[in-house]
Amino acid sequence: MRAAVFCGPHCIEVTDRPDAVVQAPTDAVVRVVLGCVCGSDLWYYRGESPHTLGPIGHEFIGVVDQVGTEVRRVAEGDFVIAPFKFSDGTCAHCRAGWTSNCVAGAPFGTDGIDGGQGEAVRVPFADGTLVKVPGSGHSDETLRSLLTLTDVMATGHHADVSAGVKTGSVVAVVGDGAVGLCAIIAARRLGAARIIALSRNPARQTMARSFGATDVVAERGDAATEAVLEITDGIGVDAAVECVGTAQSFATAFAIARPGSIVGFVGVPHRVEVPIDTMFGRNIGLRGGAAPVRRYIPELLDDVLNERIHPGLVFDLESTLDGVAEAYAAMDERRAIKSLLRIGTV
Amino acid sequence: MRAAVFCGPHCIEVTDRPDAVVQAPTDAVVRVVLGCVCGSDLWYYRGESPHTLGPIGHEFIGVVDQVGTEVRRVAEGDFVIAPFKFSDGTCAHCRAGWTSNCVAGAPFGTDGIDGGQGEAVRVPFADGTLVKVPGSGHSDETLRSLLTLTDVMATGHHADVSAGVKTGSVVAVVGDGAVGLCAIIAARRLGAARIIALSRNPARQTMARSFGATDVVAERGDAATEAVLEITDGIGVDAAVECVGTAQSFATAFAIARPGSIVGFVGVPHRVEVPIDTMFGRNIGLRGGAAPVRRYIPELLDDVLNERIHPGLVFDLESTLDGVAEAYAAMDERRAIKSLLRIGTV
Repeated sequence: MRAAVFCGPHCIEVTDRPDAVVQAPTDAVVRVVLGCVCGSDLWYYRGESPHTLGPIGHEFIGVVDQVGTEVRRVAEGDFVIAPFKFSDGTCAHCRAGWTSNCVAGAPFGTDGIDGGQGEAVRVPFADGTLVKVPGSGHSDETLRSLLTLTDVMATGHHADVSAGVKTGSVVAVVGDGAVGLCAIIAARRLGAARIIALSRNPARQTMARSFGATDVVAERGDAATEAVLEITDGIGVDAAVECVGTAQSFATAFAIARPGSIVGFVGVPHRVEVPIDTMFGRNIGLRGGAAPVRRYIPELLDDVLNERIHPGLVFDLESTLDGVAEAYAAMDERRAIKSLLRIGTV
Repeated sequence: MRAAVFCGPHCIEVTDRPDAVVQAPTDAVVRVVLGCVCGSDLWYYRGESPHTLGPIGHEFIGVVDQVGTEVRRVAEGDFVIAPFKFSDGTCAHCRAGWTSNCVAGAPFGTDGIDGGQGEAVRVPFADGTLVKVPGSGHSDETLRSLLTLTDVMATGHHADVSAGVKTGSVVAVVGDGAVGLCAIIAARRLGAARIIALSRNPARQTMARSFGATDVVAERGDAATEAVLEITDGIGVDAAVECVGTAQSFATAFAIARPGSIVGFVGVPHRVEVPIDTMFGRNIGLRGGAAPVRRYIPELLDDVLNERIHPGLVFDLESTLDGVAEAYAAMDERRAIKSLLRIGTV
């Protein structure tokens, strides 16, 4: 089969790899229909975090092609969503809903595990991992939105859930990448009364507003803090949602969070120092991490299928598998919010 | 009036100070009956954090002696509890319950504000700050427990609330100081199913068990982590409660917290580095700070008056105001868990 591989910083190639096959009785093989590039893929692409040379990509949806003898919940021909990590569904962490912390889990597209940027994927613990999509004949728009449930939409949702967003909340979303934009969708879905998007990019500001942002702050750093405080009568926001992972975005999130609130974070932190004295003095919490996507998929899936949310709109570039290098480059250079890969057919 | 003052590291004296008098129409003057020394007082006592030379002590209960013309909720002769910080009760943060973050508030016994380790205290914003104790003729045991509601018991409670302790939780309390011991009382009160006390001091272990600890771990560092993981079948605790504020205690709290849980912290952090990568990777939150004591007093007061909790037992040394220097020294040298000062009569 053909699959994208990481060959070093700024090097993505499509090569022939051994066909994905069932190796354990709990495995399934999924033929990939759509895949995409994640903002977190850019860290290794840019050489800023390590990554094994080999298969890549942890977001994909597709059709079950083969199942092991012990797989019960999905069958050949099922259209399925895979969370970005596989999980056994049975360990204490999975049972508590923290599927991204499964003791037997790992992300797709790391350490030689098949990636979603390829024609097929061996999925360990298929019953604990895959979610079958009901119905058939879904529109391309629906498929694009289903693809976001593998990571980006669920991650934006996790940022809001971590920050305690609820009905009536005043929320600020720091970061206008695909995760930040999905966090806006999620905040509106959770009933936020006011959603302040921090974005300086006109196209992303427009998308933010279409997703539910009520205010846009284009400033950065101290000026952004001042602007948010002015919007909130000097009080700060009920929930600050950090969707970048840099020192500046964390600093802004803590500066605009009102006392007693929680900063929700889902951007993989890079060179971030947590302001523990501020947290103590102003009673600001910090909560987040790798989203337990498998737990969130069912509720978000329902909203996608009923067309209540349209997260697939974050994809503003698409290509075939052969175009994967450009798909990375466009996101790296911020020419694209998020790149979709059309790999197979339903 | 006579009051204790800080005269430099390891120097506490009792001196004559100007009598506390009503200065603003919202002030009250409280004649102190009982005061005490806080674990956080030891930081400046040891020269490890700055403190203005002058009045000290932020925990006191007493009798209202005088009220300003605009004070409505307390009157001369009322027996009252003062939270460790005064708060106006009307700002956005107070209205949201975050009284320790009042925009007009400050701790007693700092920057020249009267301290609770003295004969009387001018209390700004008396209506927003003081809580009247119903009834009269309370026993000495009850008075001692009421004194803990000014800070230490409310702070232990805040640690548990911050960590999300609820019915059935498996909780670990890191720290066997007065706050840690009160956090055990609070955890049981909140319905924890299992409470693991980390303590190596036999007397404190005994008190921890009497307050509701079901398990005691005497080890420290990695050995403590191993012991807690063994107790919890390798899973970790549902809520880790950090009541010390050192790098080691934070590290232990994060190491024993299960994925998806929250570390609640109330020890003033000193040279602590927050393990942001661990937080992200294991989805462990961090929440806490200076307890919103004023908000918590009513519910805890009810439990003290109905003898459901007995936090006054943490006082294991007592003296008059003249003995205040020894009261500090005994805590500094860990000869006492917490020192009570008998200053006036009811």
